[in-house]
Amino acid sequence: MSLTVVGSIAFDSVRTPFGERERMLGGSAVHFALAASFFSDVGVVGPVGDDFGDEHLELLRARGIDVGDLERVAGGETFFWRGHYEYDMNLAHTDDTQLNVFGEFEPKLSDRSREADVLFLANIQPDLQRRVRAQCAGAKLAALDSMNLWIDTERQALTHAIHEVDCLIINDAEIRQLTDQPNLARAAKAVMELGPRIVVAKQGEYGAALFTPTSFFAIPGFPLEDVRDPTGAGDSFAGGFLGYLDGEAAASGGDLVLDDATLRRAMAAGTALASFNVEDFGTERVARLERDEIDARLAALRSMTQFE
Amino acid sequence: MSLTVVGSIAFDSVRTPFGERERMLGGSAVHFALAASFFSDVGVVGPVGDDFGDEHLELLRARGIDVGDLERVAGGETFFWRGHYEYDMNLAHTDDTQLNVFGEFEPKLSDRSREADVLFLANIQPDLQRRVRAQCAGAKLAALDSMNLWIDTERQALTHAIHEVDCLIINDAEIRQLTDQPNLARAAKAVMELGPRIVVAKQGEYGAALFTPTSFFAIPGFPLEDVRDPTGAGDSFAGGFLGYLDGEAAASGGDLVLDDATLRRAMAAGTALASFNVEDFGTERVARLERDEIDARLAALRSMTQFE
Repeated sequence: MSLTVVGSIAFDSVRTPFGERERMLGGSAVHFALAASFFSDVGVVGPVGDDFGDEHLELLRARGIDVGDLERVAGGETFFWRGHYEYDMNLAHTDDTQLNVFGEFEPKLSDRSREADVLFLANIQPDLQRRVRAQCAGAKLAALDSMNLWIDTERQALTHAIHEVDCLIINDAEIRQLTDQPNLARAAKAVMELGPRIVVAKQGEYGAALFTPTSFFAIPGFPLEDVRDPTGAGDSFAGGFLGYLDGEAAASGGDLVLDDATLRRAMAAGTALASFNVEDFGTERVARLERDEIDARLAALRSMTQFE
Repeated sequence: MSLTVVGSIAFDSVRTPFGERERMLGGSAVHFALAASFFSDVGVVGPVGDDFGDEHLELLRARGIDVGDLERVAGGETFFWRGHYEYDMNLAHTDDTQLNVFGEFEPKLSDRSREADVLFLANIQPDLQRRVRAQCAGAKLAALDSMNLWIDTERQALTHAIHEVDCLIINDAEIRQLTDQPNLARAAKAVMELGPRIVVAKQGEYGAALFTPTSFFAIPGFPLEDVRDPTGAGDSFAGGFLGYLDGEAAASGGDLVLDDATLRRAMAAGTALASFNVEDFGTERVARLERDEIDARLAALRSMTQFE
């Protein structure tokens, strides 16, 4: 089994009440891949510029991530985001966005990336997501994230893209906006009518909810007293979730299992990875994370949610 | 065992996208008492006016609620609230508030109310809460709710009131405001430094979180496709939570048990009662609720939150 993610590879300059960093490695595909790498064989597809150094490649390779489809654009600069957070860290304030090489990005997947069993289309322009989806026609599970920008400006293209995936992983405010339905349970049902049979509503510090045609599951965010940088939490969640599903399939002989019990464990894995991600700036915490720390956090999450 | 609640008895005129009602029976003490009545012997303390009719008393009595401490103020009118909700029903818009008899309210508790084992000080002026607390000095468990108005205008009195209770049950935004601490885990710890050893953060549709000195528990809101009127959800939660604890004590011979397992079941009971409350206007749903419906919803909540 293997997992391909297509999305942004970025340099992020971030300021929070707890410090600041200039030009850290970031981007949706990076946060996703690092999280997924604890469970699954993952490859990243996306463009970088001349400013993308070997130390950044090495950080990904050290986690076993396949970087063969990182496309280096000669003379280009890597996608750049600058933002900050106030004391209430639920809201990111964007100070600068420079698309750079991402503005002209046309994904070209290697055979290895095309043959992935699980595909994650991170939050990029919906027509790009569709063209990647078409290249990975054999994926057994395709999932997609998006954002308010595309709902506002590219709703029709986004609806087409959603129609072509099995799973939507998106912020709960955006599910409501996408479906014009303030009630989350009805909004999730409306998404299923577009195509996906698995809908994951990310709810920030409140956790995440999972809707399938026949079941509902919710898990709280892991309670942390110290959140240093929330950037990438949603992509880390998606990486933990899909990475877990792909890894379980590999462990059990190759068939992807999407029953309730497995999906719920994947929700817990996503929650754990998101919680580690926000404990330090950028990729710093996940880059030094150990598998036994994940297992301990999964056990803690279980004990925080069970009652008889 | 018995439970006393002090708070508002009101007439509410409410408009939501799903209908409107004029002068329904409402108020924090009413919603609390109806919810608690499924588990516990509950008595209501609060003032009403000449306009409070026998049919309203009867609705409470039909659920076994002791109305002996409802104080009828001759020539007065019952507290009145008018409000409405947009499609996003997480935010109540207040159109009119008339304190009426509540403006001069000075609680006088009967011996029966004073001797309650569990006391709930619903959201009223903090000095009033303190004077009631002093009259119920023997309560084994005293809990308090409040709101942003009192944090803004009576912070010192509120801090004193909180110091004198065992349990705070309050919206999560208000815990953050009260403690000037945007991180909920830290905010809950700061509340414990004021006195309470049990802190419940109500999170609206996201559910509720429970903090004790040694543990954390979170439970999602019950997912509903049809929310007709959210008024009273928080008080119904508190009624289910404290009513369950009082009822368990009665069932087990009189000692209040506040271990993790019991507190968690109480959180589920609160969640279930809040979810029924919002299914129809005012008290309409809870007034016709049956115990077996509660048990079925508790079982559903358990199955929606467990993972292996």
